[in-house]
Order: sequence, then structure tokens, then C-alpha cells
Amino acid sequence: MQLIDYRLTDHISMLVRGKNYQSIWLDESDPSVVKVIDQQKLPFVFETKELRSVDDIYTAIKDMTVRGAPLIGAAAAFGIYLATLEITPASNPMQHLANAARYLISCRPTAVNLSIAVNRVMAELNEVKDEKELSSVALRAALQFCEAEKENCRLIGVNGLPLIKEINRKKKGETVNILTHCNAGWLACIDYGTVTSPLYLAHESGIPVHIWVDETRPLNQGARLTAWELGEAGIPYTLVTDNTGGHLMQHGMVDIVITGCDRATKKGDVANKTGTYLKALAAHDNHIPFYAALPLSSFDMTISDGIQEIPIEERDPEEVTHLSGLSGNDIVTIRICPENTTAVNYAFDVTPARLISGLITEKGICKPDEKEIKKMFNNIK
Amino acid sequence: MQLIDYRLTDHISMLVRGKNYQSIWLDESDPSVVKVIDQQKLPFVFETKELRSVDDIYTAIKDMTVRGAPLIGAAAAFGIYLATLEITPASNPMQHLANAARYLISCRPTAVNLSIAVNRVMAELNEVKDEKELSSVALRAALQFCEAEKENCRLIGVNGLPLIKEINRKKKGETVNILTHCNAGWLACIDYGTVTSPLYLAHESGIPVHIWVDETRPLNQGARLTAWELGEAGIPYTLVTDNTGGHLMQHGMVDIVITGCDRATKKGDVANKTGTYLKALAAHDNHIPFYAALPLSSFDMTISDGIQEIPIEERDPEEVTHLSGLSGNDIVTIRICPENTTAVNYAFDVTPARLISGLITEKGICKPDEKEIKKMFNNIK
Repeated sequence: MQLIDYRLTDHISMLVRGKNYQSIWLDESDPSVVKVIDQQKLPFVFETKELRSVDDIYTAIKDMTVRGAPLIGAAAAFGIYLATLEITPASNPMQHLANAARYLISCRPTAVNLSIAVNRVMAELNEVKDEKELSSVALRAALQFCEAEKENCRLIGVNGLPLIKEINRKKKGETVNILTHCNAGWLACIDYGTVTSPLYLAHESGIPVHIWVDETRPLNQGARLTAWELGEAGIPYTLVTDNTGGHLMQHGMVDIVITGCDRATKKGDVANKTGTYLKALAAHDNHIPFYAALPLSSFDMTISDGIQEIPIEERDPEEVTHLSGLSGNDIVTIRICPENTTAVNYAFDVTPARLISGLITEKGICKPDEKEIKKMFNNIK
Repeated sequence: MQLIDYRLTDHISMLVRGKNYQSIWLDESDPSVVKVIDQQKLPFVFETKELRSVDDIYTAIKDMTVRGAPLIGAAAAFGIYLATLEITPASNPMQHLANAARYLISCRPTAVNLSIAVNRVMAELNEVKDEKELSSVALRAALQFCEAEKENCRLIGVNGLPLIKEINRKKKGETVNILTHCNAGWLACIDYGTVTSPLYLAHESGIPVHIWVDETRPLNQGARLTAWELGEAGIPYTLVTDNTGGHLMQHGMVDIVITGCDRATKKGDVANKTGTYLKALAAHDNHIPFYAALPLSSFDMTISDGIQEIPIEERDPEEVTHLSGLSGNDIVTIRICPENTTAVNYAFDVTPARLISGLITEKGICKPDEKEIKKMFNNIK
């Protein structure tokens, strides 16, 4: 768990048309406005969106204008800050904030970052004596949370890079083929990304990498967001359907699988976008290392058995029966099955620890094992 | 391997708006025309298409107007018949037919039914002394091939039904949940289907079944065709993304997986639509039986190791980057990723025998084992 002293060149890969972006920030001219990139419209349209209320934050998380475990945590932290601005003379301030906290946490059930972020800001607010300070304390706590998550992502890159370097060395300098599922890039986080952070580092340090991007149905975060991010960064990638990874692995075309994580248990089970489990099975069957990259804020140390205990979000079946994309210059939604088809949409699945080679965190890489995970947490204090 | 004497009520489930259809037939008023259902347009438009030449057959197979291992075999058999109608006084008849045979076999590489069907018709033609008889012999051979394949599918139903019955008995009459990938219904065959044949039998004999239909990217044969077939037959089904099966199996929502097969080796490895291997891994990991349903014409007894020896078709990457469906009343094609995205499209994968519980054939169910498979072939003679 030794950390290498290597600084990621600030934002070098997170350009959009030559300009640096994070996935969430405070409007410079109006600090009561939170700004985000509208991820529903990417890669077809690059648009930012202004969020001005707890409701705006809730809706943006719910409809996946913002998504990704670390980012929805950050958005919810800002949500509590916006809640402090909504306190009226008639309301009981802490009651109002507690309601907002519950409301925001209820928005999406699987990623634990949401409740961790909200609870962290609320803990600061519970210490406030003077009501007039609630807003400034909430804002500072939200910004601190974001800065910490950015630094965590940077360190995940630093800690994950040696894995890629070692494969490159074993392959005598040949391209390292990395498969990823969904999007765990800077869009899913605030900056750097989790999975993409070591990829950026490898790319910037001249190690040839090539990414297999799972399209990630139903919402195609891989085809829409990961492909877009990697394309903007100039990192070679190939888009494949979610069905293809098994064949690639059987034929030696994948050297390592790295995915994100929405919630990990204290024993190292990992909930991530639906389909991750299938890739972990294929990696295991073909003796290919399978890693999850995650900040410690994605651990839920209150639970052990991911399959039994992590709530799996069931989303609108229309995300399965319909699909959006570009036709000419318009974003068009099409139906891909017979009318009135019944569908279900479990948005996540759980990969048991036994299929995972290691967890890449800001504190280092550890085995998916209760003792090792606890050791990492103890390192913080 | 005992056969039950159970006759499927003729065509009861293969209705389209109240009319019986096969997936391929000879035009009753003009026997030089082969008719098929245009499977590219289903489920949005039900249209039949006339195929009048070897080239028409080739194109229909290539662009997947007709698809499914048994059906492309049947179409190619009719292709040789159409080739006999194209013999000119200037051509060497057997040379012309041999060229047509090579051409048709080259059309799609993975399913072995194509070459088996073509070679069967060609073997009959090689016995013909009088050139004037070539057409009638070819037609008879093609029709015989189709009738045999239909009967094989019917018997696959008869032989597969006890598996479903037994699960239903163990579940004390509760609904049997069956997961399938791609389309191995009557559209993929000529009639009955392979996977669907036992489902129809179960449904008709009052056993409650519910089918999990994998959408099956990239071409969505599950969402478009299997969903449509089951809907027309009144069999309950739920559409899911290809990523979802693992979660369903982890949570006891799948009792058995049954898929089709494009080519099986003599040791019982099975090539089928890409993604099948991932479902077999999940079934194995969760102790759920995994069966492939196939006529003996899908066996390639010349090869052993499916992963090394079965050629996997690589299709147009545009099938990955673009998708068609219904918008309003129009079939629209949308792009689902950034412009100029690089994609690859391996259309099949191979499930090794060790993950397969059994192979359901017209001769009975056997283990994926060389000795058992050979025994089944010996039963024919």
C-alpha cells in the first residue's frame, strides 16, 4: 500500500473543446447556483445546467442529468447547501435540513456515497450554534467533500498505475488492453474519475493502453460517456456490446478488467452497474485480473453480504424498451421491441468478493477481505 | 433418450394475426419464388419478401432478412434449387451449382447448418443423370430438408418438455422461469423453433411458464423477435437487457436457461449468439441448469475445441454504433455513441461443454460429451 509520489498534470485529460471542466461546480457570478454538465445529452450535445434548489438537485440525480456514485454524493452535498438557502423565517431550520437530507438520500438507493456525503455535511451543520452560519458551513463542507473526492480520485490513479505498468512490462512494452463497464470517468466523479484515473496516468506517461468500452445498456453510459471522455483525451478505445467481453477474454484480448463501484461491503462485495458481475465471472474463468476502483466513501462498513444486503435500484422499464440517440441533428427516442412489452430494469448487480482481484482506493490497493479493508480505514486516522 | 408420443397441435402457437406461417415457403402460384418473412422489419412491420435468385438468397442471409441457424440452412437449400433454375445452355451445370454452393456457404461462417444443408442438396444432385431432373431433385431435397428440420424442432419440444415439467413439479406447480438469449423460435427455424418448442408444449399443456427475454445486442433479436413471437403466442415474458441475467440468477428468479446453437463440436462446445457464454457462466455460478436446444444438423463432428476451431463471424461495426427502432410510425436508425467511434462486432461466442448441463436434440437430451453425442448420431442409422 505504498504511495508513489506522482502528480497528475492538473486536468490535462479532462478537456472539453480545449477548456477544463469538472462535472460539478459553483457558478462564479452567483454562489446560489450549482452548475453541472447535462449527462443525459452527451455525447450529442454538450450543455451545462443550473441547479437552484433541493428539488433541482433531486431531479438531476433522479433523471441522471448527474450520475456516478462519487458525483451524486457531491451533488447531494451541494443539495444540503441549497437547502440552507431555502430556510424561511417560518421553518424550523434543523427540521427543514433533516427533511432535505432524507429526501436527497431517498433519491437513489444503491450508491452509498449519497448518504455518506449528506451525512457528512449534516454532521457539520449539527455543530452550528448560530443559524446565520448554516449556509457558509454547508457550503464549506460541500466544497471540502468535493476537494477530498477529487484528491481521492487522483490517488486512485497513482495507486492503480503500477498494475498497468506491470502488465506492460510483462508484455514487453506492448499495448495493455483494459476492459471497463459503464462510466467511472471524471463525469461520474468530480475530476479524474476512478477507473479512468490510472488510465490517464498510464497514457500520459507513455504506456500504450487500449480500452474496451462496454456500451452498458440500458442507458449506455459506456457508449455515450466513457467513449466520449476517452475520445476527448485521445486514448484509443473500441466500443463493444455488453455481450462481447466473454469472447474477448477467451481469446486473450483483455489484460485486465477495471470497473467502478457504487457500494462495497466490509467483506469486499461490490455493487456496480448491472452486468459487472457477468464480466467478473468471465475474467475469473479466463484468469484475467478483475479490479474495482473506488474511493473509501463507496464502502458501507455496516454490511457484509452484498447480494443479500445492498438494495438494487429498479428503474423505469422504459429505459429498456426505448433508447435515445442521434438521427440527423436530432436526439430521437425509439422503441426497440413490440408495443406494450413488459420489461424490468435492475440498474445494478453485485459482484462477490471471491471474483475480485483487488480494490483500488486512495489509500492503496487491497484484497477484498474484511481485515485488509479495515486496515485501510484505520490508516486514515 | 426415450421419446414421448406427444404431438404438438399443428401450428397452434405460430400464428400471425390469426394466420399460420412458417418462416420460409415456396410461393404457391409460382414455384420459382421462395417467400420469407422480412425479419429485419419485425416487430414493427410484418412483411413477406420474394427471393428469386441465388443472389437474393445470399443477400437475405447476409443482411439477416432471414437468420437463425436452422433457417439459413433451409434458405441455402432453396438457394441451390434456385441455382438449378439459373442454369443456361452455355454453362456447365454441375460447375454452376458447385459455384453457387460455395457462394452460399461463404455467406455466414459460424452456423454449420448452412454447409450441411447445401451439401445435402448437392449430394442428391451429384447422383442425377439427366440434367433436366436437376431442378425437381433440388426442390425435393430442399423441401425434404425443411420437413426434416420441422420434425426435428417438434421433437426437440417433445424431448425438452420433461425438463420444464420436472421443475414445475419441484416448485409445486409454481411458474417455471426460463431465461433465453437471442431468438431460437420458429422465426429462426422453419417452424416450432428449437428453444421455443418445449415452451409452446409446456404452455399448451397448462404448465405456467414465464420467459426472461435477453434483448440480445447488437441486433436485438430477443427484443424484436422472441418478444414478438411469445407475445403472439400469449406466453408471458419479460424483456431484460443482456446485463441483467446475472442479477436474476443470483436472486433465484431463473429456474433454467435454454439457448439455441449455431454450431456444436463433437465434444459439446456450443457456439451461439454473442453473450451466451456469459449467461452460461452465471448459470454455473448459481447452480442453475443451462441447456442448448439444437437439431443434430447443428453439430460439426469434424471439430473438438469450439473456442479454437469455430470461426466467429465479425459483422459490420455499425450494428454496434447504430440501432433501429420505431419513432412515431417510422423505423428510424439512431447513432448511440460519439461520431467516428471505433467498434467491433463479434456476432457469436463459444460456451465450453463444462458449463452445459445438456443438449436437447430431436433424438433426446444428452450430456455435452463426445461418447454421448456420437451415440445419438448412431441412433439415426
